[in-house]
Amino acid sequence: MPSSAPLRLLVSCPDRPGIIAAVARFLHERGANIVRSDQHTSDPRGGTFFLRMEFVLPDERRDLLEAFGLTVAAPYRMTWRVIDSQHRKRIAVLASRADHCLVDLLWRQRRGELAAEITMVASNHADLRSTVEWFGVPFHHVPMPAAGKAAAEAELADLLEGRCDVAVLARYMQILSGAFLDKIGVPVINIHHSFLPSFPGAAPYQRARDRGVKLIGATAHYVTAELDEGPIIEQDVVRASHRDDAAALARLGADVERTVLARAVRWHCEDRLLQHENTVLVF
Amino acid sequence: MPSSAPLRLLVSCPDRPGIIAAVARFLHERGANIVRSDQHTSDPRGGTFFLRMEFVLPDERRDLLEAFGLTVAAPYRMTWRVIDSQHRKRIAVLASRADHCLVDLLWRQRRGELAAEITMVASNHADLRSTVEWFGVPFHHVPMPAAGKAAAEAELADLLEGRCDVAVLARYMQILSGAFLDKIGVPVINIHHSFLPSFPGAAPYQRARDRGVKLIGATAHYVTAELDEGPIIEQDVVRASHRDDAAALARLGADVERTVLARAVRWHCEDRLLQHENTVLVF
Amino acid sequence: MPSSAPLRLLVSCPDRPGIIAAVARFLHERGANIVRSDQHTSDPRGGTFFLRMEFVLPDERRDLLEAFGLTVAAPYRMTWRVIDSQHRKRIAVLASRADHCLVDLLWRQRRGELAAEITMVASNHADLRSTVEWFGVPFHHVPMPAAGKAAAEAELADLLEGRCDVAVLARYMQILSGAFLDKIGVPVINIHHSFLPSFPGAAPYQRARDRGVKLIGATAHYVTAELDEGPIIEQDVVRASHRDDAAALARLGADVERTVLARAVRWHCEDRLLQHENTVLVF
Amino acid sequence: MPSSAPLRLLVSCPDRPGIIAAVARFLHERGANIVRSDQHTSDPRGGTFFLRMEFVLPDERRDLLEAFGLTVAAPYRMTWRVIDSQHRKRIAVLASRADHCLVDLLWRQRRGELAAEITMVASNHADLRSTVEWFGVPFHHVPMPAAGKAAAEAELADLLEGRCDVAVLARYMQILSGAFLDKIGVPVINIHHSFLPSFPGAAPYQRARDRGVKLIGATAHYVTAELDEGPIIEQDVVRASHRDDAAALARLGADVERTVLARAVRWHCEDRLLQHENTVLVF
Repeated sequence: MPSSAPLRLLVSCPDRPGIIAAVARFLHERGANIVRSDQHTSDPRGGTFFLRMEFVLPDERRDLLEAFGLTVAAPYRMTWRVIDSQHRKRIAVLASRADHCLVDLLWRQRRGELAAEITMVASNHADLRSTVEWFGVPFHHVPMPAAGKAAAEAELADLLEGRCDVAVLARYMQILSGAFLDKIGVPVINIHHSFLPSFPGAAPYQRARDRGVKLIGATAHYVTAELDEGPIIEQDVVRASHRDDAAALARLGADVERTVLARAVRWHCEDRLLQHENTVLVF
Repeated sequence: MPSSAPLRLLVSCPDRPGIIAAVARFLHERGANIVRSDQHTSDPRGGTFFLRMEFVLPDERRDLLEAFGLTVAAPYRMTWRVIDSQHRKRIAVLASRADHCLVDLLWRQRRGELAAEITMVASNHADLRSTVEWFGVPFHHVPMPAAGKAAAEAELADLLEGRCDVAVLARYMQILSGAFLDKIGVPVINIHHSFLPSFPGAAPYQRARDRGVKLIGATAHYVTAELDEGPIIEQDVVRASHRDDAAALARLGADVERTVLARAVRWHCEDRLLQHENTVLVF
Repeated sequence: MPSSAPLRLLVSCPDRPGIIAAVARFLHERGANIVRSDQHTSDPRGGTFFLRMEFVLPDERRDLLEAFGLTVAAPYRMTWRVIDSQHRKRIAVLASRADHCLVDLLWRQRRGELAAEITMVASNHADLRSTVEWFGVPFHHVPMPAAGKAAAEAELADLLEGRCDVAVLARYMQILSGAFLDKIGVPVINIHHSFLPSFPGAAPYQRARDRGVKLIGATAHYVTAELDEGPIIEQDVVRASHRDDAAALARLGADVERTVLARAVRWHCEDRLLQHENTVLVF
Repeated sequence: MPSSAPLRLLVSCPDRPGIIAAVARFLHERGANIVRSDQHTSDPRGGTFFLRMEFVLPDERRDLLEAFGLTVAAPYRMTWRVIDSQHRKRIAVLASRADHCLVDLLWRQRRGELAAEITMVASNHADLRSTVEWFGVPFHHVPMPAAGKAAAEAELADLLEGRCDVAVLARYMQILSGAFLDKIGVPVINIHHSFLPSFPGAAPYQRARDRGVKLIGATAHYVTAELDEGPIIEQDVVRASHRDDAAALARLGADVERTVLARAVRWHCEDRLLQHENTVLVF
């Protein structure tokens, strides 16, 4: 059964000569056509080699995977995955009251820009229910009372577990525990409304104004147990001036936040992000 | 004796109605023509009012100043200055070994871009002597041995005191003491090679790479006794990627550093910078 | 009856000394407090002077206007207007099938970002009806058949005339006649999907790709009878590469288009735009 | 005799499966280690394939080239080159009176940023002689009188022919004939002080101001016989406002011009630029 959508091969392994030759030869002998190839070596001397290849395979796929593992991946000690671009990732979005990042993702999905499907939205507030449902996406209200946060997190984890391939915190103003992250077991992308590592934590726009910075920014990153310390996926900035009070900064920043988050989510769903230590390679 | 170059009036005072009317009326009655006017109120309720006016005065000037103090500045409790744009500020540049910011300033002065005069360059290394002297600017080698830093700072302060209106640290890799700053008694502008408050202190490019930020930046700020904590004048950023190692970041960043520093120095020399708490208004 | 919202005074007149003094004095004597003031002279020698002042007036307003006309505006031969910021402008949006600019404006209005009210949307296609109506805004389907364009334009003009203060072409893919513009008699803002004057007219993204430009852009401008030749309000760009085909450029560009258009509409509704010859001053 | 500096392989050919496999296998069998690889296909269906590989070869090189031509390049109908990165390109710079692009290139060469050698500067004016000679670079004054332009061009061509690998027009305000370009027979890079295709030809800053654009730009492109129509290498922009007169635009633009030109020259000297029709791929 032929597959016409490209497959994506992601590889990381200790760098040494011959990797590209081995991979390209393997694919070519199975009749694959490589349509895009990106590589990077973290350090020319003894570093880690990263590879992402998109290829079209006119043939049945499972054989390929087994054979690749044996004949190429094992000798080069590769960590590797093959992803079918036809498989659209399921996104669960968590939001609070601010709508700009959420609406932008919903709208991009409707336009077909995300190459993914938003399968649910959960929020600790009910405000955005009608907006979400208008886009035809199920909305779940999971309050996060300070008193019963553990139970609420458990409820949220039950909701997400097995139902999404990635979770996106679209200005979700709650800190999620390491236990929660472990339980849902999928990557989580957050948008932070500052140019990290500047102004981690609360009220970054007010602090940006107090410090008198001339550009404000936004940062999309993978979530780890350390608040605002996870690997950065994408960042951007916009110019600000003394004329902009904290409310104006929040308004200017909202446009950057939604664009940065959308790029990060899209790249993730296109399997273009590879992690190396605490950084992200964008291929 | 008529003055054809514009004068610059800088004012800050408690905000209240009538300030602009009082200033504009005073100037108009002396025959002044306002060619540019910028104002800002830090807070509509009980804030501080800032004003910068450029005006051309067909008449003798000293009278004006005394009268302004009595009839306008005093009743409004203004902090104020009038600066003759014909008076070109004297800049002392401090540099170490890196030449990019220094050469850029020297070259801009030669082109007439700075509206100021670089009257001397001092460095803790002798490397850049011939470069500086080629531009016709005196070069002073003032070593900064770890052992005798206090004496060296005193020597440097003696050199600068009374001979410059502003000092510029053009990647001067030494931390200057509060005592030094007090002694020279002029504003000091520094360029820091990161987007502050990210990565204050040493090795910002390496730390930027380790943190995986997607933009690197530079910050020009007034120097205070607190390292990299002074009021920010200007910032800018440039996009970086995983392909850029620390050396490449330094190369990319150098272009941003010199541009940001040149803007800050130019604006300072045009008296376009007003300080409010720990921030800088750019008019 | 006191008015607490700021008033906006817009002035243009031949430049000569004393204008600011006259205006500021007039306002101060009526008890106004100037909260923002911007000015510009097109040419220090014999140019045109432009002024925008925002002020708060604790008093009744009509008197002021008559008196200002007599005592200030007339002697300085001013073209002038006073606008009450409480009066929210009525926006009519014209769209075709592309939804990105339209949805962005509707969403910004819902957030209260526009300082204006979208009172209707008209389109030559019916596709976006449910989207528009979901935001609670009336939708009018006015087909524009090549055969009967004059009649269709007349119908559209009837719809708009007297019902909007500004019309916004949110990727409305029809060229409107001078007669139409005359009839509706309000400013019309268009978004063009290129960095004008590059690529006026049709298919700018394809032409941008064929020309191999490294940045693609968008331009918001006032519409005149000359296609894509009207005064430019705002522009911005985004980086593109050989990897981006025309579809990718359109996707990247869409984000710039909506941001640029939103800024232009917001600034227009805040009365921050003054025209000088074929250019726009943004105050 | 081993070569430790990377070699660069540039390939273009009709796209078909197996190219990367063939190239990578060939290199691997000769003991090469690929340190960087970029590819692009102009069109997935029947397009042109472009490849740039950097590899380190522990062995003697000439054999490789002959064998590659026979066993890989011929069957795939490749246009190809192998360049030794140790071979530093010789740059001839042509300048007029403006110094900003010229000084920037000279300074970058001094810092070792260009990976190339500026072997001469020629100018139709003598103004910049001492500047150029201070950098230790030979300066040639070749006047270009309107009356005797053909003879002057011939003199200039004689000067350049065989003495440079690339010529850079660093704000050289003369139009060079097709005959001149043919005679020198090396690529020529020009910096144009506008965001092409906006404002080709003369006085772009003045025209930018008259048109009221909100961003001004610069474009580095390969020179063809058609003025300002050659393939674009790099572009960038900077924000401008109504406050900036044509002189201010020229000053702001100068910073963009020198940065854009330096990037283009550096990329060219690193063999990172491949031409496709009238566009340039940057690898």
